[in-house]
Parts: sequence; C-alpha cells; structure tokens
Amino acid sequence: MTPIPAPWLLVPGGLTAPSGFLAAGSTAGLKASGKPDLSLLLAPEGAVCAGSFTTNRVRAACVELCEQRLAASGGRARALLTNSGQANACTGARGLADSLTATGAIAARLGLVPEQVLICSTGVIGVPIPIDTLIAGLDPLVAALSPEGGAAAATAILTTDLVDKQIALEARLGGRTVRLGGMAKGSGMIHPAMATMLGYLSCDAGVPAELWQGMVQRAVDRSFNAITVDGDTSTNDTFLAFAAGEPLSPEHFEALEAGLTAVSQHLARAIARDGEGATCLIEVQVEGAATEAGARAIARTICGSSLVKCAIHGRDPNWGRIVAAAGRAGVAFDPEAVALWLGEHQLMAAGQPLPFDRPAASTYLRACAAGTYLGGPGPAGDTVAIRLVVGDGPGQGLAWGCDLSDQYVRINADYTT
Amino acid sequence: MTPIPAPWLLVPGGLTAPSGFLAAGSTAGLKASGKPDLSLLLAPEGAVCAGSFTTNRVRAACVELCEQRLAASGGRARALLTNSGQANACTGARGLADSLTATGAIAARLGLVPEQVLICSTGVIGVPIPIDTLIAGLDPLVAALSPEGGAAAATAILTTDLVDKQIALEARLGGRTVRLGGMAKGSGMIHPAMATMLGYLSCDAGVPAELWQGMVQRAVDRSFNAITVDGDTSTNDTFLAFAAGEPLSPEHFEALEAGLTAVSQHLARAIARDGEGATCLIEVQVEGAATEAGARAIARTICGSSLVKCAIHGRDPNWGRIVAAAGRAGVAFDPEAVALWLGEHQLMAAGQPLPFDRPAASTYLRACAAGTYLGGPGPAGDTVAIRLVVGDGPGQGLAWGCDLSDQYVRINADYTT
Repeated sequence: MTPIPAPWLLVPGGLTAPSGFLAAGSTAGLKASGKPDLSLLLAPEGAVCAGSFTTNRVRAACVELCEQRLAASGGRARALLTNSGQANACTGARGLADSLTATGAIAARLGLVPEQVLICSTGVIGVPIPIDTLIAGLDPLVAALSPEGGAAAATAILTTDLVDKQIALEARLGGRTVRLGGMAKGSGMIHPAMATMLGYLSCDAGVPAELWQGMVQRAVDRSFNAITVDGDTSTNDTFLAFAAGEPLSPEHFEALEAGLTAVSQHLARAIARDGEGATCLIEVQVEGAATEAGARAIARTICGSSLVKCAIHGRDPNWGRIVAAAGRAGVAFDPEAVALWLGEHQLMAAGQPLPFDRPAASTYLRACAAGTYLGGPGPAGDTVAIRLVVGDGPGQGLAWGCDLSDQYVRINADYTT
Repeated sequence: MTPIPAPWLLVPGGLTAPSGFLAAGSTAGLKASGKPDLSLLLAPEGAVCAGSFTTNRVRAACVELCEQRLAASGGRARALLTNSGQANACTGARGLADSLTATGAIAARLGLVPEQVLICSTGVIGVPIPIDTLIAGLDPLVAALSPEGGAAAATAILTTDLVDKQIALEARLGGRTVRLGGMAKGSGMIHPAMATMLGYLSCDAGVPAELWQGMVQRAVDRSFNAITVDGDTSTNDTFLAFAAGEPLSPEHFEALEAGLTAVSQHLARAIARDGEGATCLIEVQVEGAATEAGARAIARTICGSSLVKCAIHGRDPNWGRIVAAAGRAGVAFDPEAVALWLGEHQLMAAGQPLPFDRPAASTYLRACAAGTYLGGPGPAGDTVAIRLVVGDGPGQGLAWGCDLSDQYVRINADYTT
C-alpha cells in the first residue's frame, strides 16, 4: 500500500468518490470474451482537465484527438469515453473518423458539444473499432451513469489485467471536504498488441486549469512515468485528471498536490504489481543524486533491467546487476560513493561489496514474493525494497517495477496467434 | 553468415591469421569449472591500437587502465592479456593494483614496458582476481605464444558462451596480401555478474593511429553498438583493434574499412546469436530515415523490445509490436509512411496493416528458429529478417538481436546462488 500523506485519508470507491462525478461501465460486445468494454465518465460543469500522453511517435487516433481538444479548449472537458478491445492505433484515416463518430454520439446523448468529449481506446493494435457495435452500446451506457458507477467504469477499461485498480482519498481543506478519486488499467507499460496504460483521476475542488496541469504533470512524473514492466511504451498511454467544484484556496494547493501524487503513485504501483507474469512488486529508492530527475532515472533503469528482474525472480541477491544497471542510466555519479541495501540487508558501502548474510537476503526475497514479509525498513508485504545511495546530493527518486518470470515470456510468446 | 564485401575473402583462423601476430590460451585455475582462463595476444613492433569501451559509469579497473594507456601512448600497444572468471569490477583499489601487477608481469616476460600491455577481464563482478594464481599461470602462457595460437586464445576468453567466435579475411590490396583477424566473447550485452562483451581484431597492414581510430569507431558503431541481447550494458565491454605491418596506401583505406566492418559485424552477429536462451538471430534493417544513426537507433530499439523478442520466440508475426517499438526509439518519422516486411511477407504499407498469409509468416519464423529457412530475401538459415521503411530519407541502419525465451529467464534467475 502506498503511504497516504497527511491530511489525506483513504475512503472507499474510486473515480466517483468526489462529489458531482458520474460514471458507468457496460458491455457492448467489442471483446470476444464478452467482458465489459465501454466506460464513461461525466465530470461536473466547469471541470478542468489535464492530460499526459504517450511519447511514442506512433500514436492512436484517440490520443491525437484528446490532445488536440484539450489544447484547443485550454484544458476543459466534460466527458470521457473508453472502449476496450481495440486500441484504434495504426488504423489510418478510419481511426480518426471512428473517434469523431463515437465522441459525437456521446455529446448528442449528454447535451454537450463534441469538443467537450474525450475518448481513450485500448486493445489490439491495427484492428478498427466495430463502430456500429460501439454506437449501439451507448444508450444503455449513458442510462447507467451514476454516482456509484466508479467500480463498473474501472472494470470496463481492463484488458489482460488480473485485478481492477481504484483508489479514493479524502481530506479537510479550508473547512471543507475534498475528495480525489482514481482508476487505471495496464499490466505492462504496453500490452502485447493489447496496448496501453490508462489512468484517470477526479477531484471535486476547483483549481485553475494551468495550475492543475502543472500539478498533474509533476504527479505523473513521480508515478506513472516512474514505472516499467517491459520497457515498451504503448501507442495509447494516457493519463487524464479532472477537477471541478468550488475553487480551492491557493494555501491548500500543496496539500492537494500531495494527495494527487499519492493517488497517482497508488495506481502506478498497482499497474507494476499486476505486470504480466509478475510475482512481486519492486520498489527502488535512489538517494544522493544531483537532481530528483537523475535519481528517478537511475531508479527506473534498475527497475527496467532484465537481469535485475530475473535475479529477483530467482530470489537471488545479485547486487552486481543492480550497480551495473545504475551505471548505464546516463546519470553521472561517483561509483566509489555507492551504498546499497536490499530490504534491511546492506550489500555495498563506498562502492565495494560488504560481507552479508546471503541466505537471509534470499529468504527476504522469497518472503516478498509470498507476500509475507512484515518487518524491517521499506514497504512490507509483497514489495522488494532496493535502496541505492549514489552520493551526497539532494536528489531522491522512487521507481517501481516487477520481476521477470518465465510466465511473462509464455504470455507474450503465445499471445495473438 | 555476414556478407563479405569485395575484395575480401574468408580464410581460416582468427586473430593470428594476419602476419606477425602471436597468441596463446591456457588454464591457470581462475575458473571453478577448470576451463581455459588466460589469453594473450602479442602484436608486432610498431602496432597501433584503437579501443572502444563501455559507456557504463561503473567500469572495471582494467577498462580504466586500457583507456588511460591508449590515450597516453597516442594509440600504441603491443600485448593484450585477458583473464576470464573475474570481471575485476567493483573491487576498489585492489582492482587497479591487480591490473597493474598482471600487466607488469607480462611486460617483464616479453621485454616490454608495462605501458605497452593492456588487460581485459570478464567474469563475476565484485570478486577480486586470485592474482597469485594468475601470475603463476603466466610462464606457460607466454611459452605457448605462437602464430597458430588464435583458436586457443579465442577459447580462453569465453565465460557462459556456448561457442567460440572467430573470423579471418584476406584481400589483395595494392599488390600485396592484407589480412584481418578477429575474435569475441559474450552471450548478452552483459552477462549476469559474469559480465561482458569483449572483441579483438588484428590487421597486418600499417595504418596511422588517428585514421585507424576513426575506422574502428565507425565499424564498432555498425556492429557491436548495433546488437542487444537484454539491454544491460556491461561494466567491462571492450573492443580493441591492432594494426601493424607495412603501411597501406591511402587509396586502399576504404577497402580496409569495409573488411574491418565485415569482421566486426560477423563477431557482433555471433554474439547476438549466442544470446542466452536464444533460438534464432533477429536482423532488423531500417531504411528511409533522415540519418544512418536514426535508422540504427530504430533498428536497435526493435531488436531490444521484450515484446518483439517474445513474439518471435512464439513464432508470432505480431507486427503491431514492431511498429510500437519503432515509435519509441526517439527518432522522428511519419507513421503514415511506414512499410514493414517479415522475411518475404509484407505486413504493412503506408502506415496501415495489409492482409497477409499469417500461417505462412508463422511458418517462416519456425523455419528460422529451426535453421532451415533457405529462400526469399534477407539472410537465410537461422536469421529472422525484419525490414522497416520509415520514409524516403537516405538513412539506413542494421541491428541484431535474438529472441527472448523462458530459458533466458531460467538462466538468469538461477545464476549465482
């Protein structure tokens, strides 16, 4: 569990926990499995929306449309439709036409203009959305919109995920109750042809659009941009965060950003933990770098190393791989200053290996994989904690990943054919 | 087999095929397995030597020493000692002391000054070289130096490699015979704690040191810097190329560089093919990029994608993963211009999927893995050929990798403990 920063408390629910947000999930028949495949969020009037999108040069039509609409409106949107089953990437001119058709149909049903409606798609690349099937599913979807619809919406965006991913926080800020809600999908930075990380957040306090965009981008950098499952950036990755409600006083912006970051980190960790074939979450904390971005780059490189991931899957405290991965992160540090801990076991000091209890360190890794590790520093339960000090600079950063199992290879070798 | 450019012809042998080079391999007892672990190359008087080293911030003592000595001498060296078993990385002050001791002992036995002797180490990170054992092994090693010693030297640098990697080429240039020889080790960009790609090349034509350095760097960029097995850059990666003999006339430099590049590409492909757990070599050709470097970056990103590697292991023509990987290479191109071939099967044109014979494409992948594919464009045998056109620019680039198998995970999960 992600630590919840004061003054925030965990509350039940997800995207519709904040006041005024409605959501729904339904089954239109877009997936061969017959599982829920349409998800809709309706934000209150006046909502601002900040987005963060994949850096992939090959982007789905829906990603282009979201970015254009948010830029044109200065960060305002009311509704967000998500279809799961087809990613609508590499679908040519038809891809954009389908995105326009779907958002137009939602707008007509909600009394909005099409420019107020966003769309995200996730699923197989290169296969068009069966658009008639989608349109036929919209009336029941809109009819199902409700303040209790967050859970159904969270389920309808999943593809190969094993679990849904939701969270809601509450705080008293300036004498009023503020809530944040979030949901996400993804069990890899990309899914094999079943692309995509999607994350959505709602907030029932009003924040000026420009400030909101800044807060959201920092939270994304500290959460979704700090996870990796397989290093493959999707064509569809999207994070969208809505805020709507009575304006919040600027003195509470710092607290709001702390909550927003906590929601984002919870969802990001949940995605990494649900990584394909994963048996444990890996959390890497890097300290003593020159900058926060440098620390995070080192942490993420360690999380992304196939050799580190295999070692942890083998319950092997193979510290040489961790240091070698840190060294290729493209960030300057003094190798002679390196200190390294795995859970409570210190493995290196001043750049050189220390004698350590290898069987105990291996037992620690086994306990993390079994979800039964309860003691010592760092996160407990199913999280392997790696702490690397690279100097005496002020930069600290966290990143999350998962182990690499033979199951990952089987899932991705056997996927489409 | 790498295509051999005219006027070069393949000849038997490796590093000692060029005139005047002596080599030896022997067993000093540095490896628990009892396999050969010391390798020595002696280049003719007047030899120039160009080196290319790992970009990892954490570098072995021997890498630092090689780079310093080549810089101080202006690219001159006579002897190269390699020990396999211990990488001499993360070994602190003792690491450099051991490298100095070993090269000094070789210099004394060969009548050289220590500054003329280079050293490379490969094996477990963080474990010091048993230096007394190494020194005790030097007399028999020096005694074994011979013009037929190339094969023994090539065997003694291996760690977890399944096969040794050698090649020699010959050409008539300006009325004389010129030979190039090469050898390498590595079955990953890094080996798990058993780090390192090492590559060595010899040439019996004299080339000015600065020109030689330029030729070697371009050849490395087109070969060793274009392969990936697991994305983990070693702490010890080193390529060293010696040239010694009658000076070659500048009109033949272009031909010499073509041969040098062919030797480097042969060795680089051999390393990728011997990637841990690999069942086939993957060769990616990218065309139409703005620059050669951009094309190679895209090709290497495709080769390094876990999802592409898993798909090929699953004999699955999952083209969406190839295009998604290309898109995250950090190189600008127009997604609408993309065309893609897998062997002789065209899968995309103008950025959109084409109908293709999926069972036939899968059969092609199975034939490559079995080493029985004999027809059609691209390399034959056990090489999966991917060709991606990203526009109409002049930039072309090649990269090589291998598939990702459950065997890779098992090798790296079970390695040290």
